[in-house]
Amino acid sequence: MQAKLRPGMTVGELVRELGRAGAYNAGSLSHAADIYESMLRDAQAEKFLGLAGAMVPAGMGGIVADMIGRGHVDVLVSTGANLTHDIIEAIGCSHYHGTAWCDDVALHEEEINRIYDVFLPNEAFVRFEAFLQGIFAGFDAGSMLSIADLLRSIGENLTTGILSAAAKQDIPVYCPAIQDSMIGLQYWLFDQSHTVTVDAFADMHALLDRCFAATRAGALLVGGGVPKNYIFQSMLMTPKGFDYAVQLTGDRPDLGGLSGATLDEAKSWGKITGTARAVTVYGDATITLPLLVAAVLERLEP
Amino acid sequence: MQAKLRPGMTVGELVRELGRAGAYNAGSLSHAADIYESMLRDAQAEKFLGLAGAMVPAGMGGIVADMIGRGHVDVLVSTGANLTHDIIEAIGCSHYHGTAWCDDVALHEEEINRIYDVFLPNEAFVRFEAFLQGIFAGFDAGSMLSIADLLRSIGENLTTGILSAAAKQDIPVYCPAIQDSMIGLQYWLFDQSHTVTVDAFADMHALLDRCFAATRAGALLVGGGVPKNYIFQSMLMTPKGFDYAVQLTGDRPDLGGLSGATLDEAKSWGKITGTARAVTVYGDATITLPLLVAAVLERLEP
Amino acid sequence: MQAKLRPGMTVGELVRELGRAGAYNAGSLSHAADIYESMLRDAQAEKFLGLAGAMVPAGMGGIVADMIGRGHVDVLVSTGANLTHDIIEAIGCSHYHGTAWCDDVALHEEEINRIYDVFLPNEAFVRFEAFLQGIFAGFDAGSMLSIADLLRSIGENLTTGILSAAAKQDIPVYCPAIQDSMIGLQYWLFDQSHTVTVDAFADMHALLDRCFAATRAGALLVGGGVPKNYIFQSMLMTPKGFDYAVQLTGDRPDLGGLSGATLDEAKSWGKITGTARAVTVYGDATITLPLLVAAVLERLEP
Amino acid sequence: MQAKLRPGMTVGELVRELGRAGAYNAGSLSHAADIYESMLRDAQAEKFLGLAGAMVPAGMGGIVADMIGRGHVDVLVSTGANLTHDIIEAIGCSHYHGTAWCDDVALHEEEINRIYDVFLPNEAFVRFEAFLQGIFAGFDAGSMLSIADLLRSIGENLTTGILSAAAKQDIPVYCPAIQDSMIGLQYWLFDQSHTVTVDAFADMHALLDRCFAATRAGALLVGGGVPKNYIFQSMLMTPKGFDYAVQLTGDRPDLGGLSGATLDEAKSWGKITGTARAVTVYGDATITLPLLVAAVLERLEP
Repeated sequence: MQAKLRPGMTVGELVRELGRAGAYNAGSLSHAADIYESMLRDAQAEKFLGLAGAMVPAGMGGIVADMIGRGHVDVLVSTGANLTHDIIEAIGCSHYHGTAWCDDVALHEEEINRIYDVFLPNEAFVRFEAFLQGIFAGFDAGSMLSIADLLRSIGENLTTGILSAAAKQDIPVYCPAIQDSMIGLQYWLFDQSHTVTVDAFADMHALLDRCFAATRAGALLVGGGVPKNYIFQSMLMTPKGFDYAVQLTGDRPDLGGLSGATLDEAKSWGKITGTARAVTVYGDATITLPLLVAAVLERLEP
Repeated sequence: MQAKLRPGMTVGELVRELGRAGAYNAGSLSHAADIYESMLRDAQAEKFLGLAGAMVPAGMGGIVADMIGRGHVDVLVSTGANLTHDIIEAIGCSHYHGTAWCDDVALHEEEINRIYDVFLPNEAFVRFEAFLQGIFAGFDAGSMLSIADLLRSIGENLTTGILSAAAKQDIPVYCPAIQDSMIGLQYWLFDQSHTVTVDAFADMHALLDRCFAATRAGALLVGGGVPKNYIFQSMLMTPKGFDYAVQLTGDRPDLGGLSGATLDEAKSWGKITGTARAVTVYGDATITLPLLVAAVLERLEP
Repeated sequence: MQAKLRPGMTVGELVRELGRAGAYNAGSLSHAADIYESMLRDAQAEKFLGLAGAMVPAGMGGIVADMIGRGHVDVLVSTGANLTHDIIEAIGCSHYHGTAWCDDVALHEEEINRIYDVFLPNEAFVRFEAFLQGIFAGFDAGSMLSIADLLRSIGENLTTGILSAAAKQDIPVYCPAIQDSMIGLQYWLFDQSHTVTVDAFADMHALLDRCFAATRAGALLVGGGVPKNYIFQSMLMTPKGFDYAVQLTGDRPDLGGLSGATLDEAKSWGKITGTARAVTVYGDATITLPLLVAAVLERLEP
Repeated sequence: MQAKLRPGMTVGELVRELGRAGAYNAGSLSHAADIYESMLRDAQAEKFLGLAGAMVPAGMGGIVADMIGRGHVDVLVSTGANLTHDIIEAIGCSHYHGTAWCDDVALHEEEINRIYDVFLPNEAFVRFEAFLQGIFAGFDAGSMLSIADLLRSIGENLTTGILSAAAKQDIPVYCPAIQDSMIGLQYWLFDQSHTVTVDAFADMHALLDRCFAATRAGALLVGGGVPKNYIFQSMLMTPKGFDYAVQLTGDRPDLGGLSGATLDEAKSWGKITGTARAVTVYGDATITLPLLVAAVLERLEP
């Protein structure tokens, strides 16, 4: 069937028309909205959100924080970069609209860091350092923390953004590669003269307990990377698998990497159940995530 | 800035939020809406639409026909495949929602043709043949036609779809590689026992005259391929170039092909003016085209 | 199994190691070499080469001309752009190594045209015009040509390159969208004051006769676009299909376009036989084509 | 210039011809070979290898182990998945050539895990568990390890593969997201009843010390992900940056993610020096890595 548009239509109506068209990634997006709606309506489903790719610099952090605030996320797994940029926004620094076509050596001289077409002045990292070192300084000498503990401490000291929303909602934020971020570099600075240990594996116990306890489970994966794998592998040790899965990725399957792998592939591993409702939408998540979330919000709060 | 969503928001509001986020392809899409709106509001701009990729099988033909019906297109350049599938829909056959993960040999035995996750039964081509041969039979023996003449004759015999809308609006449809389609194969059948000649180059005169006459020009390019190049090269012989250009493509620049080439590259050739407003949105056009068109319709008809 | 490398290994040895590794596109490339070797060794197979993407500007024209010279191609289907750039090289002009990161407006002022990171000075088109208009001037007034006739006339007036090799080997070159190229624009110029008609459909008879007559058929597809479709559809009217198919493309299937479509999809249409040996290698053909051809040459001429 | 092929040519000769062609990713690959050769010949350059993507299941592990064995790597940063599969191969289990087009639910029932077109039977993980738990059991109760210590212990107990080669050459292997892998799940098992702590940040000290001490530095990045960022950020705290960088990735820049980001972007951050020799080759690393390494080996050991 042919999609039809009309002036002033809502996002939910648009996604329904994409479903009538029903092909390629438009069809997949419509299918994703159905699955994501079911997942959110399923009170017994443990809801995981995976967040990879530079989504916060791209202005998608507010959407994620709002999802958490609405109770749509039970567990967040993120890259360190997204959390770094979330902190930067939350302490009052901004990412700027720039351009991808520029002289990066000149930018460096002007102390501006580029993320595709987003510009971030170095001064943000000066404030970032002061903020984080202040928090780290509050840790007890000789104590042992998990990565989620560390991130919770940060979130409790912020009033907006993803980490703040997670702290307020009391949901865990996992970030297995925390070292691989500006947060990690700040911790390295702190670690040179302090005796607080962050246990790399400590978070796995709570995460796997949650997986063992879950009646059903669903995952919304924005990008692939560590968050996708960490979420999926957490179910591997249990006799269960994910029942709902929506993956928004710009990668492709034929390169073999997990980030572009189909969700069917995850079924061979048992990460997703054989009867799971699962779909991948290929494309830029800065477009597909807002479309998906706005369409489903409209269904949940008509 | 961070994008914000709310339940029931319109597509135009969503695209504005993508513009606030302002990064990656979300930012580009917002920029594209601004350019496309300006182009449509510019009464002096000749408006070209390039249509490549299997958009009609994907249910996008109704949107294109509606764009033509609203007077938003002065010249359409299409692949033969899109026009073939437009005819198929217009004579009452349907494309079906299928799946990309299937046994294609079995499908072939069931006489079903697949286009990614769209299924088209062979019987559509039986009716397609009867319809087209009926039209071709009306051509005068010994006459000479242009490709646009041929397509106009088809459109005048249909009541819905792209070719019909183009005939009603009296706009030309160019299809340089008409042979490379089911329409071409049908013409080959007809041509075996008839003496009607289709002149490969005849349409170029009217097209280039139009380019020479245009005060300003704009192009909306859905996919690349022949339509993109044919539209852009048509301005090469004039002292002008395109003033507005929006490209929706899933291809990538680094492979060197035109379909993924940046619009800046077109400036080096003079196909686009140095001061043109131009942007590429990378992604699946089954998502980006409806988003763009619905957002701009909302601005034009608030 | 793990691939092993050694200093000084031949390309054929490397491709064998890629086959031992056997995964992703390395595995596909190794598989493609096996299929392409079988196709070339099969004296009864009609051999088609599809050439899309800007391969000649990228320095791949010499490889294609050499393939033709060795008798490895029975039918060539190309975009107009590749033939345009083939002529430019054959009349002594050059494409230059440039960069993709430059000021295209400044390039335009310097009269340099850019194709990703290849530069082509405008003066090449001045010589191109003189050369082509000289050839067109030799056509008889009132005569009727096919596109292959037109291209043959050009090839006969050149001593190197693809069109020259095709003329020498007496193989047809089909270019359905010839208008969509600089050759087309030159013909438009000529056509304004001459009465030579190029019949858009004339070539289909010889092409389809060849398909009906073929015992077996194989296709090497460099890129997708018009050449891929035109080659594949030519077998649709026959009771047969392609028996061998190798596709080298940088596109992706999920966008629905033919250029990225799997070869399995072609089986549903009957373009490829259910038992055909067929494989797609995803990647930049400026890398995969030379790898494939050099490896198979080594097998054929050990 | 046009590339030329001849039967029996070496990989080094092929890459030279790709350099003569000099365009798109073929040109980039040739450029990458020049940079990688210079980097390896520079005795004062600290050499980093980043390994992301499922390269070991794809049969690329032997190449990486050989690179380490030849002394071409001073620091390896890898995903956990590559190290998991390296261990699996090293303890005598195999990855099998499979297919990407299969019934994953049926595969799951047969206890076969799929990685695109690679199959890995579950039984490998049974032996993997026994092997790893045996090693972990040797750790002293109450002790504190870094992730590199953990990986070194594993490598010392193997005789082939990447971890073994790294242990023999005495180079560190960093894996910031070690939890995010089958090694991580095994450690979680062990960790339930043991008191050995793995300090998430411990490795950063040695890594950054190395960066501060380096006269010059170079990076070969296979894929992006955590390894790319971790390598690049390690230079951020120093007054220096990378002087050589070669990136082999299948991702694309316009999605904003680090894995597809250009190396120029890294210059804005100062991760790469303004005068660094740096190039990205877009494509499947199962093809580009062997091509690059074999070509450079031929130059180093003619």
